[in-house]
Amino acid sequence: MVAAPVSLESLCINSIRMLAVDAVNKSKSGHPGLPMGCAPMGYTLWDKFLRHNPKNPKWFNRDRFVLSAGHGCMLLYALLHLTGYDSVTIDDIKQFRQWGARTPGHPETFETAGVEVTAGPLGAGISNAVGLAIAEAHLAAKFNKADAKIVDHFTYVIMGDGCNQEGVASEACSLAGHLKLGKLIALYDDNHITIDGRTDVSFTEDVLKRYESYGWHVQHVQEGNTDVDAIAKAIESAKAISDKPSIIKVTTTIGFGSPNKSDTAGVHGAPLGEEEAELTRKSLDWPYEPFEIPNEVYQQYQKAIVRGESLEKEWNQLLDNYRKKYSNEAEEFERMLRGELPSDWDKDLPSYTPKDNGLATRKHSQICLGAIGPNLPELIGGSADLTHSNYTDIKGESGSFQPETPEKRYLHFGVREHAMAAILNGIAYHNSGLIPYGGTFLVFADYMRGSMRLSALSELGVIYVLTHDSIGVGEDGPTHQPIETIPSLRAIPNMLVFRPGDGNETSGSYKLAIENRKRPSSLCLSRQGMPNQANSSSKKVALGGYVIEDCVGTPDLILIGTGSELNLCIEAAQELTNQGKKIRVVSMPCMELFEEQSASYKEEVLPPLVRKRLVVEAALSFGWHKYIGLDGDSVTMNSFGASAPGGTCMEKFGFTVENVINKAKKLLN
Amino acid sequence: MVAAPVSLESLCINSIRMLAVDAVNKSKSGHPGLPMGCAPMGYTLWDKFLRHNPKNPKWFNRDRFVLSAGHGCMLLYALLHLTGYDSVTIDDIKQFRQWGARTPGHPETFETAGVEVTAGPLGAGISNAVGLAIAEAHLAAKFNKADAKIVDHFTYVIMGDGCNQEGVASEACSLAGHLKLGKLIALYDDNHITIDGRTDVSFTEDVLKRYESYGWHVQHVQEGNTDVDAIAKAIESAKAISDKPSIIKVTTTIGFGSPNKSDTAGVHGAPLGEEEAELTRKSLDWPYEPFEIPNEVYQQYQKAIVRGESLEKEWNQLLDNYRKKYSNEAEEFERMLRGELPSDWDKDLPSYTPKDNGLATRKHSQICLGAIGPNLPELIGGSADLTHSNYTDIKGESGSFQPETPEKRYLHFGVREHAMAAILNGIAYHNSGLIPYGGTFLVFADYMRGSMRLSALSELGVIYVLTHDSIGVGEDGPTHQPIETIPSLRAIPNMLVFRPGDGNETSGSYKLAIENRKRPSSLCLSRQGMPNQANSSSKKVALGGYVIEDCVGTPDLILIGTGSELNLCIEAAQELTNQGKKIRVVSMPCMELFEEQSASYKEEVLPPLVRKRLVVEAALSFGWHKYIGLDGDSVTMNSFGASAPGGTCMEKFGFTVENVINKAKKLLN
Repeated sequence: MVAAPVSLESLCINSIRMLAVDAVNKSKSGHPGLPMGCAPMGYTLWDKFLRHNPKNPKWFNRDRFVLSAGHGCMLLYALLHLTGYDSVTIDDIKQFRQWGARTPGHPETFETAGVEVTAGPLGAGISNAVGLAIAEAHLAAKFNKADAKIVDHFTYVIMGDGCNQEGVASEACSLAGHLKLGKLIALYDDNHITIDGRTDVSFTEDVLKRYESYGWHVQHVQEGNTDVDAIAKAIESAKAISDKPSIIKVTTTIGFGSPNKSDTAGVHGAPLGEEEAELTRKSLDWPYEPFEIPNEVYQQYQKAIVRGESLEKEWNQLLDNYRKKYSNEAEEFERMLRGELPSDWDKDLPSYTPKDNGLATRKHSQICLGAIGPNLPELIGGSADLTHSNYTDIKGESGSFQPETPEKRYLHFGVREHAMAAILNGIAYHNSGLIPYGGTFLVFADYMRGSMRLSALSELGVIYVLTHDSIGVGEDGPTHQPIETIPSLRAIPNMLVFRPGDGNETSGSYKLAIENRKRPSSLCLSRQGMPNQANSSSKKVALGGYVIEDCVGTPDLILIGTGSELNLCIEAAQELTNQGKKIRVVSMPCMELFEEQSASYKEEVLPPLVRKRLVVEAALSFGWHKYIGLDGDSVTMNSFGASAPGGTCMEKFGFTVENVINKAKKLLN
Repeated sequence: MVAAPVSLESLCINSIRMLAVDAVNKSKSGHPGLPMGCAPMGYTLWDKFLRHNPKNPKWFNRDRFVLSAGHGCMLLYALLHLTGYDSVTIDDIKQFRQWGARTPGHPETFETAGVEVTAGPLGAGISNAVGLAIAEAHLAAKFNKADAKIVDHFTYVIMGDGCNQEGVASEACSLAGHLKLGKLIALYDDNHITIDGRTDVSFTEDVLKRYESYGWHVQHVQEGNTDVDAIAKAIESAKAISDKPSIIKVTTTIGFGSPNKSDTAGVHGAPLGEEEAELTRKSLDWPYEPFEIPNEVYQQYQKAIVRGESLEKEWNQLLDNYRKKYSNEAEEFERMLRGELPSDWDKDLPSYTPKDNGLATRKHSQICLGAIGPNLPELIGGSADLTHSNYTDIKGESGSFQPETPEKRYLHFGVREHAMAAILNGIAYHNSGLIPYGGTFLVFADYMRGSMRLSALSELGVIYVLTHDSIGVGEDGPTHQPIETIPSLRAIPNMLVFRPGDGNETSGSYKLAIENRKRPSSLCLSRQGMPNQANSSSKKVALGGYVIEDCVGTPDLILIGTGSELNLCIEAAQELTNQGKKIRVVSMPCMELFEEQSASYKEEVLPPLVRKRLVVEAALSFGWHKYIGLDGDSVTMNSFGASAPGGTCMEKFGFTVENVINKAKKLLN
């Protein structure tokens, strides 16, 4: 059905188009093409399906909407504005892409209420959406009762050709099919254009067939520029399929309405310009001034406000009843929504003395997960097919999150690191108190770094359990031995990188990782064992670095160590002390937290005048010179590792007490 | 057809199995499961199809064999050994995974002749293979004549479930289908087991249907443990299909032959142990001692030596004729194979003075590509769908590498960064003189970091063209603004990271990137313009850092800058000089090359006693303290960026001459 140009529907759709045209023109920067092509599906979804409350963007049971093709953010800002979100006024739209605006160049959760995920890096949004749908399915299975479905919403996505080309989306959508996430519905904006031109220069696969191979329900809307009914029917059908995620390919024209630029790459990421905007106005029969929206359009879209209030009211009523009938569950549910940790969640975190067996920190990590798991039901996670290497299982629990058992909290991600990270982000974006964690080998953080960066940028408290953290990996060799991975994670702002040096420090790292709900943590954990130290401290991990062994008076030299090399420092210090040197040992399990301490604390630990400092870490020295300065030295890696037993690697690359002592003595002379 | 246990065929197959069992048992570490399951396809492929010359592993026209499931390397080592490669003796196999051995825990090109790609990180090998097939297709189109097909080989792959779950493989295989790479043949070891157990915990998609959706030819061998004929027939059929890549799903049993461990995750990555090895011997009817191989097995496999000699001889004859008939082409071809650059390839690289218009370094990069492209026919590359942003096209050339035009050298990778990097690696692994480059936004280096690391590890001279290198990106905002990307690339050993400060330095960076055939280069290039400097030097880029502006006598303070911030340093220095300060400015376009200079040169540039040093770079200071020390300072980023015009971002985050002067003065006081 082609809508008549003057119909209200048409006005509603063209409002999105023209807001995009005008905002991008005004800012002289942005992407008008997608909003112009996707306006009909945006309108259909938001006006006819999306259950949300514009006046309370954080209402828990809202449908989630993810614009995976984040560059088309004017679509989202237009919809937020038109449906009455306070976060996006017409003035905000006029400030599109300007300093301090709530309408940045890509959607960012931390800037704009109503934005569910930070998008722009392609493939991330759809993969986050899989995480949102997992969160919904898990909480529904956990809390819903036959007479009270307090968790019950859809996750909708608009994605483009770019998202469908990115591997992370392939990984996540394959898993979504396996998990039969029936409440995940993706609309695929099939517009045949990417930045390099027509998609047929590189992308001619049969996308729907691929999704079918994943186990998705697939549909095709042939005329997405105008056929609102077909879009609506397809969404209806998708909603009715409860045991498969759905994708609806909606064939559209990028920049629809622009007589000279539509269906070209030119309209993807550049302003139309004044002249073409005028021609577009004519072509769309749009007599209004820039940023002028007819009242009837607002009236239509803002029915969402009344609907939303009523939906939330209904849900509150449902929750009230639930609270009365299922008070324990309700208490738990509401605690989680408030983001409060259970009291004493950490009471079983173990502590150690040197008498306790030295273990690998990955093993300590497993003990920590076993200790906090039962007290922290919101902990949910798994591994990218390395469960028995990462030790990411929660002791005493069995079974995993599967189509038939969504109440379980162990996630088998398969060999899909990047999707894992994006899904963990999605679970965090759900904002329902769930604490997501995921494991892989540290070296494979590289596979998921795009999404780890987004955890940090979007302030998501995801916990990355990264084992096999050095050449101590041994025989698997340099492809599996991280050398530069720890420094490169430390380089990410707002990411806590922990490398605990024994059991106590592992407990302390977990405590901080769990408590830090606004920043992700990377736990770098050893494959190999190490002794428990006499003066290690779970609590002092919060200081990032602390004096673990000391001398009387001003030290001649400070040894700084982390992880499996902490013990080398301590043993070397003993020997040097025996030889009459004054040695301090600083354990530095988290450089970022140390940086945040007061100047006086930092100077207490690392007195500015003590410049003979030796860092010992089985990784590159990159990033350590902040403490080493120009006068210190390091026992660190200078190259990739090698395949040999871990102990041999350590020795051959110089991680021995003897070498630490030698380097220290060189500094002392 | 089930082979009788005593047949020669069976002995040949079981030789692989038992070498894997014995080597892994001896080293007490490794992955026996895959070689045991894949032995029949390994045998079939290597004995009946693979055209190679064991006595000259580098013979150019050999078929390439890629073990994408690199953990199963004992399969490859066994085949190399059995077919008579000098690189893998029985003693090497006994040294499996030991220090200094030629049989490391995963296949590494730089350790073992006959290993075509470094594998282990899953998904990488099959994606490299797409690059190998692209290289073959390109060179064939470029050099072959109707009467002389001097470039004519297949690329075979064995991949597992893990490879098929990784997104990078999805990206690469989608592109391979689009490009109709008919000489790429993948055998998919469908064994239903990954580390977490049965694949049905996370991986239930219809893999062949997915490949069909990509445009591949698909086949299924139901009984891969024994049915050599079926495997052979499938490979025959795959070879006959010239306009589609082929995948053959071969259903196998992991650890085939082990009575108690086959078909379990337990045999994936752990030794069988002595007892189970004995039982396996019995079950396979294998009466031989560990590492003992019956003579008839060697005799059979080593027919490859005679075949290989004869194949190479034939090809040499072909090449001789080609040389006579097509002397120009032959000269070019052989020059490329020798890895020699054309003389004067760099003669058109431009140089600049301050009178020349200041441009963005991405624009300078385009000029460089245009200047060297015509003189350097082996340059081949493209962009991950950002051609008109990265400016990666070669001026004056049109058309791209497409199924019908493989002689073209522009590659449209689509929105597939990770596949791009893996394919560039594959082109480099082809070792035929091709110089691969690829572009994306610098921030999206994160998407392909896994493969960039492998470029560095495997000593591949891939050139990464990474534009939009700072908050200067502007309106696209923090998801698109690299902050930590430059430091995190600098953290990769053997990677050259260039951040040129004007036109001359861009020319110098290109010269070095092209010349460095054993290490990859990352060119970090600006979106925005910057002036050409009076004393910038193309040649001095080779020194990594050099004095670009100086004072008389010992400087009071040294400003160190890169890229778009170099000019801030120079302007600030002028102003400070006017105010009577003695200021030196160091341009540092490549930290890695500076590190490689003599101690005396480094001390000349950065005298140890001049400790007032101020680094200016629109990225985190992470990694710079090697020069800043404890007494210097920096004008750098401390957080993610923001969405606003680039100039505004620069100003708001403190990248102004005024701020540089202020910080310098604080140090000077």
